[in-house]
Amino acid sequence: MFLRVDLSSLSIQTQSVPQVYAQYGGRALIARLLLDEMAPGCDPLGPNNLLVIAPGLLAGLPLSSAGRLSVGGKSPLTGGIKEANVGGNVGDKLGRLGIKAIIVEGLSTRDESHLLTIRSEGVELHPAGELRGLGTYDTVASLQSRFGPDIGVLAVGPAGEMGMRAAGIAVTDDLLGQPGRLAARGGLGAVMGIKGLKAIVIDDTGAKAPEPHDAEGFKQASRRFASELIESPKTGRQGSMHRYGTAAILSVVQQIGALPTRNFSRGEFEGAERIGPEQLREVILERGGKIGERCMGGCVIQCCNVYVDAEGKPIVSTLQFETLALMGSNLEIDDLDQIACLNRMCNDLGLDTIEMGAALGVAMEAGLASFGDSQAAAQLMQEVAEGTPIGRILGNGAQIAGQVLGVARVPVARGQAMPGYDPRALKGNGVTYATSAMGADHTAGNTIGARQASDPLSPEGKGELSRNLQRIGVMLDMTGLCLFARPPVVADPGLMVTLLNTRFGWTWNEEDLTRMEDEVLRMEREFNRREGFTPVHDRLPDIFTNEPLPPHNTVFDVPAEELARAVEDL
Amino acid sequence: MFLRVDLSSLSIQTQSVPQVYAQYGGRALIARLLLDEMAPGCDPLGPNNLLVIAPGLLAGLPLSSAGRLSVGGKSPLTGGIKEANVGGNVGDKLGRLGIKAIIVEGLSTRDESHLLTIRSEGVELHPAGELRGLGTYDTVASLQSRFGPDIGVLAVGPAGEMGMRAAGIAVTDDLLGQPGRLAARGGLGAVMGIKGLKAIVIDDTGAKAPEPHDAEGFKQASRRFASELIESPKTGRQGSMHRYGTAAILSVVQQIGALPTRNFSRGEFEGAERIGPEQLREVILERGGKIGERCMGGCVIQCCNVYVDAEGKPIVSTLQFETLALMGSNLEIDDLDQIACLNRMCNDLGLDTIEMGAALGVAMEAGLASFGDSQAAAQLMQEVAEGTPIGRILGNGAQIAGQVLGVARVPVARGQAMPGYDPRALKGNGVTYATSAMGADHTAGNTIGARQASDPLSPEGKGELSRNLQRIGVMLDMTGLCLFARPPVVADPGLMVTLLNTRFGWTWNEEDLTRMEDEVLRMEREFNRREGFTPVHDRLPDIFTNEPLPPHNTVFDVPAEELARAVEDL
Repeated sequence: MFLRVDLSSLSIQTQSVPQVYAQYGGRALIARLLLDEMAPGCDPLGPNNLLVIAPGLLAGLPLSSAGRLSVGGKSPLTGGIKEANVGGNVGDKLGRLGIKAIIVEGLSTRDESHLLTIRSEGVELHPAGELRGLGTYDTVASLQSRFGPDIGVLAVGPAGEMGMRAAGIAVTDDLLGQPGRLAARGGLGAVMGIKGLKAIVIDDTGAKAPEPHDAEGFKQASRRFASELIESPKTGRQGSMHRYGTAAILSVVQQIGALPTRNFSRGEFEGAERIGPEQLREVILERGGKIGERCMGGCVIQCCNVYVDAEGKPIVSTLQFETLALMGSNLEIDDLDQIACLNRMCNDLGLDTIEMGAALGVAMEAGLASFGDSQAAAQLMQEVAEGTPIGRILGNGAQIAGQVLGVARVPVARGQAMPGYDPRALKGNGVTYATSAMGADHTAGNTIGARQASDPLSPEGKGELSRNLQRIGVMLDMTGLCLFARPPVVADPGLMVTLLNTRFGWTWNEEDLTRMEDEVLRMEREFNRREGFTPVHDRLPDIFTNEPLPPHNTVFDVPAEELARAVEDL
Repeated sequence: MFLRVDLSSLSIQTQSVPQVYAQYGGRALIARLLLDEMAPGCDPLGPNNLLVIAPGLLAGLPLSSAGRLSVGGKSPLTGGIKEANVGGNVGDKLGRLGIKAIIVEGLSTRDESHLLTIRSEGVELHPAGELRGLGTYDTVASLQSRFGPDIGVLAVGPAGEMGMRAAGIAVTDDLLGQPGRLAARGGLGAVMGIKGLKAIVIDDTGAKAPEPHDAEGFKQASRRFASELIESPKTGRQGSMHRYGTAAILSVVQQIGALPTRNFSRGEFEGAERIGPEQLREVILERGGKIGERCMGGCVIQCCNVYVDAEGKPIVSTLQFETLALMGSNLEIDDLDQIACLNRMCNDLGLDTIEMGAALGVAMEAGLASFGDSQAAAQLMQEVAEGTPIGRILGNGAQIAGQVLGVARVPVARGQAMPGYDPRALKGNGVTYATSAMGADHTAGNTIGARQASDPLSPEGKGELSRNLQRIGVMLDMTGLCLFARPPVVADPGLMVTLLNTRFGWTWNEEDLTRMEDEVLRMEREFNRREGFTPVHDRLPDIFTNEPLPPHNTVFDVPAEELARAVEDL
């Protein structure tokens, strides 16, 4: 069902899913709903923006790594469509509760806070003044003590409540039950916060997994999927993902000279080893932290960690590559403890570590702190917490920080900060940043995995490469599959088709799947077109095409025709 | 000739005007040059933006009110084309020197300052570190003591040097020789400042007025023009313009309920009389200030004033309507002395009083100061002067201030602050704000003069009305005529045709003039199209279409089809 929540009238409405939406889930459903229900031109932080929370098509089932959750709306950072994708325990719970989407509209009276509870016994909106201004950790702890330890929670922190554009939506995981996962990107935390929705509690007690249309067929496909993941040298027990988590990527990106360093002025970081995967694993194991854990039930990959302090007390879970890159090398901070503390602050305030890391890099470039000075970075984060002028500048993301502070080198595309791959040394990602409706977003089409097949420094063929990966991104984000779990369905898309057909009784073939992927990309681009985006916006800032990046001293030189290939027919 | 100045290579080049540019002057020449010479997509504050300074076609001649100067480039506020128009003594001097345009490109090494001198004996670039950080008044005084009291100066203040988007370019007047006039709008002061060009000195000693092609014919047309201005009840000696200057507009705008009050939340200001034209005139005359002066040589209208303090010492010249509205009623400041002091600070820092007034209104809405508190406003201006975080937020204009401070009611169109006419009560101006390539700019097509012929509150016919006024705006801005001097050439465009034909030996008719006006509007729109603007951008922010404005309690409800009429065929 659809759950419609209006913060203006404080009303809730449930609706059976209209047949026309049956084949859409997660990111696909978001694109479709936003196109159908939103008039162009609204203020992303005004009452007419919709916040849509939608699990993937395969959520809630006994299937590994399929509980990712999509959160979408018009982005206050990019002015275009945004889908922010997050792990944790909420996606599967919504799947089990039969909720295909929560659609939040309206705006409550300024400075009012509300809580939405979704339980088997009903759905309710509660005044939640007592939660206002609380960090996400305290918010979740308070809700767990009230509604039980096994609930799932979506919550915004003070950053979202203050309408800061770097704000994301924190989601509880299946590991510590803490809000260590974020639907981080695009500023959707500001959309939720400004609407006056502080948190959503999801309690699926008593709910059962949905019954697949062909239970036996689905079970077989699900087993095949899991065993391929387990047997793969990459995603299996001896694979780098289980052993190191996303941190494994850091060595690779450093190696190709694309690791954001000193506000994207270099692609190699001297201190890379000190914040790299081996060091991370060693420190965590030595201190009694955790490695190889899972964020959602049933995941066989288990790439998560619990980073602990010297006394073994958890600082943050999970410390990930993007944070190590943007708040580590990008700021020339080479101390894992310090990065973990900055990460914790971001989680607690409800902030995207990518956007904040980029904004801090810009601040350091402007001279507000020295590169490498983690204490100064923490003080700037404290300013964000307090909503001081400088805090508000940074909390609104890298682009606004650059504009206000007068910094020319600002690593953004369409107003959103770049993740941990400099597009000058990994040109396929530059194509994705420039052409994706999502702006600079690695999950929209990350070419790092193709580095052996396609030279990262060459512009050649990067349009088609990006487009193919953009399609795969849609497939994952509409079904709820984790990016890390893609190998079996990329190697054989027929496996994905079987999962969908046995689950829903459809008769899709592989072409139907590709057609849907392109349809979603087309809808997202159409949404942006209606908002005024044109092919002119398919570009990176001047600085990336003009300023060579050491060590390879290359610029982003993918020609317009090649960029156009990534969005052909969209 | 064209004078090309490259701040990157510190080189100067003079160029005979190519024949293809002969019929373009001022704003028209800017549109043409920017289209021809700038690649789309550049960073407005990067090396590839061009700053073009161009007098009108009729500059330097014995003709009243024709020495207005156009300054243009890609706006860092709007991301589109910008022409900022300014009076003072520079336009005529450039006309007499035979300089059709100064085209500034490149970017000097960070934090370097340069001075360009244009004299009969030659054109030179000088290092000007000694001027760096100086206010515009001290800058001009220093240059006058070095180059003589009769020079014309264009200068940026600290705001422009810091790259703040509310920065304009100050220009000396013919009254006190002080930088009391600003090519204010669109942030072009930041473009000049970031390029490292602190000031331009224009010394036309020894230069003569250009010889018209048909000297006798031109003289007759010029006499007719002047005598019509003098005999008109509006522009003549007994007219409101001479007696009150632009301040006369305040009573009219208050009367129709369109006077920006308390950050555009009301259209009537209780204290309007205390900052109105009668009061202004009375205070100035009582204290021995000046009324009925001119900013440029030969002007017969003479609408300028010198606002003095209780001791008779000049505070600012000229205190104008836009400043009274944006820094007066909009901030609920009802004290002329205080407004004059804020105006002086803006001039000295090199800031647009419209943009700064709007930004201060947003700051007051955010609670950084109370409405009506002029001391607090002055303190915020001091923060701008010092480049503190809050100062940088405000100095970058109303839109960024709203984004950073989390204020929903932000009076902008295309990123630029609205002037002193609320578009909900003067809907024709709303059409201009929404559709003009210039963004919210009254000089692009001000419908206040048509209030008797066309009900300001009715959306009807406002598309055509705005378009016609947009055409007239082009005619004035390409020839260098002051807006106040438009009645004779609006009543009989044939008079303008005669002025141009006798000046240049052309054979234009009235249709040729209209064709050129439309061509300029088309070029400007084409420039913006190349930068990614579409008809979707022809709109005002939600707040103006949603929130009724007292006292008439109307919203901006001009339908899309009517808006489209203003830009038909462009």
